[in-house]
Amino acid sequence: MLVNGNESELIPVSDRGFQYGDGLFETLAVENEAPIFLSRHLERLRRGCERLAIEYPGSDILTEEAVRICKTSRSAILKIIVTRGSGSRGFRISRDVTATRVLSIHPRPAFQIDFPITGIHTILCKNRLGINSSLAGLKHLNRLEQILARIEWDSPRIQEGLMLDSDGNVIEGTMSNLFLIRRGVLMSPDLSRCGVAGIIRALVLEVAQGNKLPIQVKSITIDDLERADEVFVTNSVIGVWPVIGFDRFHYEIGPLTRRIMQWLDERQE
Amino acid sequence: MLVNGNESELIPVSDRGFQYGDGLFETLAVENEAPIFLSRHLERLRRGCERLAIEYPGSDILTEEAVRICKTSRSAILKIIVTRGSGSRGFRISRDVTATRVLSIHPRPAFQIDFPITGIHTILCKNRLGINSSLAGLKHLNRLEQILARIEWDSPRIQEGLMLDSDGNVIEGTMSNLFLIRRGVLMSPDLSRCGVAGIIRALVLEVAQGNKLPIQVKSITIDDLERADEVFVTNSVIGVWPVIGFDRFHYEIGPLTRRIMQWLDERQE
Repeated sequence: MLVNGNESELIPVSDRGFQYGDGLFETLAVENEAPIFLSRHLERLRRGCERLAIEYPGSDILTEEAVRICKTSRSAILKIIVTRGSGSRGFRISRDVTATRVLSIHPRPAFQIDFPITGIHTILCKNRLGINSSLAGLKHLNRLEQILARIEWDSPRIQEGLMLDSDGNVIEGTMSNLFLIRRGVLMSPDLSRCGVAGIIRALVLEVAQGNKLPIQVKSITIDDLERADEVFVTNSVIGVWPVIGFDRFHYEIGPLTRRIMQWLDERQE
Repeated sequence: MLVNGNESELIPVSDRGFQYGDGLFETLAVENEAPIFLSRHLERLRRGCERLAIEYPGSDILTEEAVRICKTSRSAILKIIVTRGSGSRGFRISRDVTATRVLSIHPRPAFQIDFPITGIHTILCKNRLGINSSLAGLKHLNRLEQILARIEWDSPRIQEGLMLDSDGNVIEGTMSNLFLIRRGVLMSPDLSRCGVAGIIRALVLEVAQGNKLPIQVKSITIDDLERADEVFVTNSVIGVWPVIGFDRFHYEIGPLTRRIMQWLDERQE
């Protein structure tokens, strides 16, 4: 683990990441020592820092540290955290605060390997996402909504829970973005009021557009989920997981989901 | 500073307080070595832990540590943080996790001493509070909404910013609860959908009820603020600050605000 470039597993209590969740994070797949889509993750991190008025540590130093920590990792997960840094008590930000960066490497859960092929079962979470356009899209450190949602199920048969916003729109999974396919149109929830704008989500939209697949990013309802022909979720570690069950609804792993998975594989190579 | 009872200023990066803001906190005034209203704060903390399914460390140990850390402090601020503890990556909670407790003591800002007498100026923040009844009332560690709101002003003439929820209801200040008085009725925003249910707020409602003052806890609008005869904010460190300015509105420090301040003083003695 690297804390501001030094091997350490500790941070100061006064760090605003600990005090207030005042920071951002990125989670990346690592394959053969390489963090996948690193530059895209760093670009999202940079833009997130800009929106929260956190000093961005810089892509050069983060890349150098990412490469250093991924050495000898054949298959792993890299987590990058950037917080506003240590400060005095209170929400107010002092001018002389310096951002904290933490890079850590984690094992990849082995049981997940089959899910891109078998598909997954999902449920609807009771816990909802608050609406806040200032925070929408950001992968920030305020994650209690996801934690409360994740507490809702314990069965190993369920791999993900889907979450609504406080108005009842379907937004995303607790740890993934959501896609629906209906009559050849690829749909994904609008994330301008809440949710995390994932790197793989952006890539899926890119490859779909590049391959002339009709796309709609819009408000999605439970009815849309019911009527969908294909459903899948995405994130940087899992890639694409086809959804074969959502509460009482069942889906096939369809041809467009397979094609999108193939387009993504080609992009990564 | 005490981390799990030991003098330390460091916590593990793996602490879920740092990873996700997965915890709660309390801020108390300390006078002559005594944390004020400690048992009420610990009771709120216990109930908060219950709601988030965090193991409560226990009032005996927290009281012992609070007394220990407040030794020699004539006038100070005590902050108590309880997080879910250290865990593996991911939102899911492992069964064997043990809560982390951190107690720290901080100086009291000297410039605030006059505000109970002079009153304060406030503004309306553009940043709003997301609605989430699962988190409403809790003093949890997900505080980005308050931080973004606090960034909105820098003038030392402004002491607090008032925040609306995403539906436009007036909820609270960035660090305080809000009260309005109109024609002899004490009003405070309903906090069942967002906001922090403060210890002093509960006390104000108690003493008002004990003294037969009519009370309304309900949805509050900007119009209610415009029509109010008296306005004040509360928290455990500041006590009561009368509001004399809110954007273009001006208020007198009224007789009922003064009476409530007196009732509170009597309760503390």
